[in-house]
Amino acid sequence: MTRTALDRLITPRSIAIVGASSDPTKLTGRPLAYLDGYRYPHPVYPINPREQMIGDRRCYPDPTSLPEAPDVALVLVGSDRVIDAVKQLSARGTAAAIILAGGFGESGPEGVQRQRELIEAAGSMRLLGPNTIGLINLTDGIPLSASATLEGETLRAGNVALISQSGGILGSLLSRAAARGLGFSKLIATGNEADLDVAAVLDHLVDDPATRVIALYLEGLRRPLAFRHAAQRAARAGKPIVVFKVGRSDAGVRAAMSHTGALAGSDAAYDALFRQYGIIRAERFSDLLDLPLALSCGRRLAGRRLAIVTSTGGAAGLVADAAGLTGFATPAPDAATTQVLTELGVAGAILDSNPIDLTLAGAKPTVFRSVIAQVLDSPGYDAVAVVLGSSSANDPDRAIQPLLDCAGTSTKPIIAYVSPDAPLIVRKLNEAGIPAFAAPESCAAALAAMWFAQHAIATETREALAEPSRDNAEIAIDLNPGPLNEAESKALFAKFGLPVTREIVADTPEAAETAAQTFGGNVVVKILSRAVLHKTEAGGVALDVPPHAAAATCARMARMFTSATAQAPEGFLVQEQVEGGVELILGLARDPQLGPCVLLGMGGVATELFRDTAMRLVPVSRHDAETMIGELKSAPLLNGFRGRPIADTDALADAIVAFSHMIERLSDRLSEAEINPLFVLPKGRGVVAADAVVVV
Amino acid sequence: MTRTALDRLITPRSIAIVGASSDPTKLTGRPLAYLDGYRYPHPVYPINPREQMIGDRRCYPDPTSLPEAPDVALVLVGSDRVIDAVKQLSARGTAAAIILAGGFGESGPEGVQRQRELIEAAGSMRLLGPNTIGLINLTDGIPLSASATLEGETLRAGNVALISQSGGILGSLLSRAAARGLGFSKLIATGNEADLDVAAVLDHLVDDPATRVIALYLEGLRRPLAFRHAAQRAARAGKPIVVFKVGRSDAGVRAAMSHTGALAGSDAAYDALFRQYGIIRAERFSDLLDLPLALSCGRRLAGRRLAIVTSTGGAAGLVADAAGLTGFATPAPDAATTQVLTELGVAGAILDSNPIDLTLAGAKPTVFRSVIAQVLDSPGYDAVAVVLGSSSANDPDRAIQPLLDCAGTSTKPIIAYVSPDAPLIVRKLNEAGIPAFAAPESCAAALAAMWFAQHAIATETREALAEPSRDNAEIAIDLNPGPLNEAESKALFAKFGLPVTREIVADTPEAAETAAQTFGGNVVVKILSRAVLHKTEAGGVALDVPPHAAAATCARMARMFTSATAQAPEGFLVQEQVEGGVELILGLARDPQLGPCVLLGMGGVATELFRDTAMRLVPVSRHDAETMIGELKSAPLLNGFRGRPIADTDALADAIVAFSHMIERLSDRLSEAEINPLFVLPKGRGVVAADAVVVV
Repeated sequence: MTRTALDRLITPRSIAIVGASSDPTKLTGRPLAYLDGYRYPHPVYPINPREQMIGDRRCYPDPTSLPEAPDVALVLVGSDRVIDAVKQLSARGTAAAIILAGGFGESGPEGVQRQRELIEAAGSMRLLGPNTIGLINLTDGIPLSASATLEGETLRAGNVALISQSGGILGSLLSRAAARGLGFSKLIATGNEADLDVAAVLDHLVDDPATRVIALYLEGLRRPLAFRHAAQRAARAGKPIVVFKVGRSDAGVRAAMSHTGALAGSDAAYDALFRQYGIIRAERFSDLLDLPLALSCGRRLAGRRLAIVTSTGGAAGLVADAAGLTGFATPAPDAATTQVLTELGVAGAILDSNPIDLTLAGAKPTVFRSVIAQVLDSPGYDAVAVVLGSSSANDPDRAIQPLLDCAGTSTKPIIAYVSPDAPLIVRKLNEAGIPAFAAPESCAAALAAMWFAQHAIATETREALAEPSRDNAEIAIDLNPGPLNEAESKALFAKFGLPVTREIVADTPEAAETAAQTFGGNVVVKILSRAVLHKTEAGGVALDVPPHAAAATCARMARMFTSATAQAPEGFLVQEQVEGGVELILGLARDPQLGPCVLLGMGGVATELFRDTAMRLVPVSRHDAETMIGELKSAPLLNGFRGRPIADTDALADAIVAFSHMIERLSDRLSEAEINPLFVLPKGRGVVAADAVVVV
Repeated sequence: MTRTALDRLITPRSIAIVGASSDPTKLTGRPLAYLDGYRYPHPVYPINPREQMIGDRRCYPDPTSLPEAPDVALVLVGSDRVIDAVKQLSARGTAAAIILAGGFGESGPEGVQRQRELIEAAGSMRLLGPNTIGLINLTDGIPLSASATLEGETLRAGNVALISQSGGILGSLLSRAAARGLGFSKLIATGNEADLDVAAVLDHLVDDPATRVIALYLEGLRRPLAFRHAAQRAARAGKPIVVFKVGRSDAGVRAAMSHTGALAGSDAAYDALFRQYGIIRAERFSDLLDLPLALSCGRRLAGRRLAIVTSTGGAAGLVADAAGLTGFATPAPDAATTQVLTELGVAGAILDSNPIDLTLAGAKPTVFRSVIAQVLDSPGYDAVAVVLGSSSANDPDRAIQPLLDCAGTSTKPIIAYVSPDAPLIVRKLNEAGIPAFAAPESCAAALAAMWFAQHAIATETREALAEPSRDNAEIAIDLNPGPLNEAESKALFAKFGLPVTREIVADTPEAAETAAQTFGGNVVVKILSRAVLHKTEAGGVALDVPPHAAAATCARMARMFTSATAQAPEGFLVQEQVEGGVELILGLARDPQLGPCVLLGMGGVATELFRDTAMRLVPVSRHDAETMIGELKSAPLLNGFRGRPIADTDALADAIVAFSHMIERLSDRLSEAEINPLFVLPKGRGVVAADAVVVV
């Protein structure tokens, strides 16, 4: 099997170090020292024209003189000498180079130019960086970094892969993970992403058998479509992705922008992407380690019934409270379990409610072990949280032994909350594969992530993920640039299968009245105009018009409209008056980075005041559409709230998918598209677009 | 000056230890060992009939034989022997006793009975506990506890007082605070609160000169009114209170109740209480230390412009992002500041934007010191956050020196974010009075708490806090038990100054029509009935009725009403039809623990679907009423949203206060009271209650 450039980058069988120094205390001396520390078994070629030997290795003057084309080159030289080195490495047939130096795309126009030259110099050789601290393959024990954080920390191999766009953040996480006992398969900092980006690395790690969970520190996506494909593959492979995305308050800063601009802020688009691809969003920075920690244990939650076993009531209450907020129940033990627990004869223990409190007096390891085992065995619980109280800090090994003993007796998740400041206990438990946390909220977030990972991204959901299309082939639809009037807009929507109001365009007030007679009831009459998109404010809409008054109404509206806007109407639109139904808004939001999104909002003031909206990236699958509807705070209005009729949410989901389809087909030619209101009628009667705006 | 029993409890000049043992490794031997460890200078009297001497102290057989009445007695004996000891201590004139034993109110009906006997036995002697781990006065170095957590930890004296209803939680916090370098003035666990409760202890600490900030772990309040008085005194004294209240989820409520037997009110009512008294709510358990840590530095924020100085861009971005979410801005340095920074000549540093990034290369202590000093000096910033990167972990003292050097040069707050896992740095900075955090969100929460503490509880606000009345004297208002009809309900509201619709009660349809003629326009006609509170559903309300149709409408409604409810109407209500205005709901909510509350909600579905409500405990001050209005998500609807008229929020605030006044006066006689809708008319036109329900 041919090894790809990424295989060779991450698991190299030969390594060149450009700019290596023989002094292990210098930055340029560290990588070799680290590789030797890990006993890297394959050839390492130091390159430095000023040295003959480094340690017992021959040192080469330049890449050209290497005895073989290396899998990877770690480039330690300064930014002024990087490009020459990269040219030579590429010429020598190196598969991939890691560029540590900064001073490229991140530092002004000159740097941007230098990065362009770097990419050109690399030719077909792949690049990680520049401005990266490199990568560490812990599965195979291969550190490819000069970072000083590798000195102090003892890193464990594990099944969590960490990808970070920031080297500093990778260093911080690495140090925190070492203290917490979390093990990694691969740690990769993508830096400036001149070539390899988060999407490419993610895609590669989906196929890494040593990786079960992928943690991602994200500042922004350069290739959103490639990322979506990779995320979809990860979902299908059952490998959860946990993302911490910085930049949530940017949306707040831009809140003063126009209506849809504020709603469609870029963080909202990222949020849409994460929801759409089953990616777990870390709310807090610490979650970026806590949630993978929980997921890496690989145990499955069959439900959300949590038993809490404790020797200290207060701390257990914290866990119960936090878990309750994330949807977990803490039911009392069933009679059989209480019976068995009572037979253990722990004086003063509270065994018939949950938390199951053994009290300090009863908290002997043997008792703890029996109780945990019993509770794990109970059909009434899906998981157990064990609370370790202050006394555990005095003898960590004794305190954790009951958990270690019980872990093997059941496949249900066991987690631990460590109440005192006892980092050693946290580390030892995590090293033993029992997720342990120092914050009650982390326990709750961890349980919620476990639940989400296996249920929200269930197989049927994974299959239902929409395939983002790689080609943007435009369907030949004849559209002139500029705004369409309402009738044209609706005709366009109708072409894509979106139901619109029955309506007739009339040139004159008299023709409007003739048309109105055909509706068999009162009608809505509107001014047609491409120039004025907000007709209502200009007096261009009249509701509940009796057919016999249509001509007079049109004439009056035309006068008002002209005096208000200095525009002559293009004509009149006579349409059926929609009765009943819930008013929604369905619109296009264009994110500068992530592309077109579909925005669904409750009509009226709810969209704006209560931010009652749901968003997904185009294309929106049927499953996405259904979850969008469910996300609306006002979804009960569609589901029989207070005696209302059940609304036709099937038709609504169809409409959302059709809207997405239209955006996908028309691609960048649409600058605005909105249906407001979209009436969702009672079950079986469908939806109908009562007004629409399109700007081509 | 006479010392109160609480003075004597917390700062005793003589201590008796009932059940003391001569073995310092036993629980009963520890308190004496701890006191000796702190070199307690006053007399300590061990009491144990089986010992003659403990160390070089004479041991007494019982409290009666003590040479003086001790200030405090620490009672270590088991629950079966506590009551006798307490009787004797009380008889001997002891000021206060601390009861460590459990097995009282928290453990079933027998325990509850035993706790009653305990209270009786104490007579005029005050009690702390039972079921407590005691108290530690660090200001004066007096530990009154047998807790093993005192062994391992080095506790610092500081200006934060911690009150906890759970001993276990106190132990956890104490251990975490020791690791973090947070110092305390007093640590007090109130346990079962047979006598002294959170309110009493809080009230006492408001006057403690060594206490600047009060941290409180709360499961439930036994005396809400006393707590409110104490909280009000704290606000007036400028001492912020930070509360972590467990019981936000149902699971948490149940856990808290079974734990110390505390009574739980609804979390929403507690939230109302906290808002009303300027109490800072800790959202996460870690906030209960982080926020006091920030507040204890005593520095003032003049505004919310934050400079971030860093050597590592990624971590600084985390702080900026989190701070942005809590309302802090991170503006770029002004030209003068950038100029001075540039003159420092740090190659590669980013000095014209914020975060100010010196990069790893530029992060020499001298440079860091100059930059921090310069930024502190800049009129463009109100606070500085310094980010310590991975390299700081290698040499903590060198890394923190620039912060220590600069802290004295300015009165602006300086906080630190420590990016690697480096608990030693966190501790050293905190010990030096520079709040330091290991989570970016904690930095943001800390800054927000500093801002809230000095601005939200400003002097004028403190003066505006409503005085909860201690007496419930009922005003003589003649009310028969049971529901009132709409006209009676409104008459009651009107009596308390709440404007109601102009209306006339009519006995017959014909009388209703005669009445309708006097309104000069269409009217609203309703069925009057005490038996049916929801008239609309029973067809008992007709809007927009022309006066000439009033009799026919009434007759038709009466038939429908009777057939729907099997109740005969009591009569008819003819009222003005209110045009324009925003519909709100104003109602009474009764919390089982905290008492009556006023609930303000947006009308229609917003209250229910979007939980768009604001709540305060009775009495509601004018200031409270104004902040309630501002808390509504839909407040913009009252303030000219999208061209609407500005609503009469002054009159709305008056109405809220009047409503509260009515509830206070009628006290427990009201079981339901609601105005729905309350129309808020355009500015200058007031409010008007269009429908009302009262159940006496």
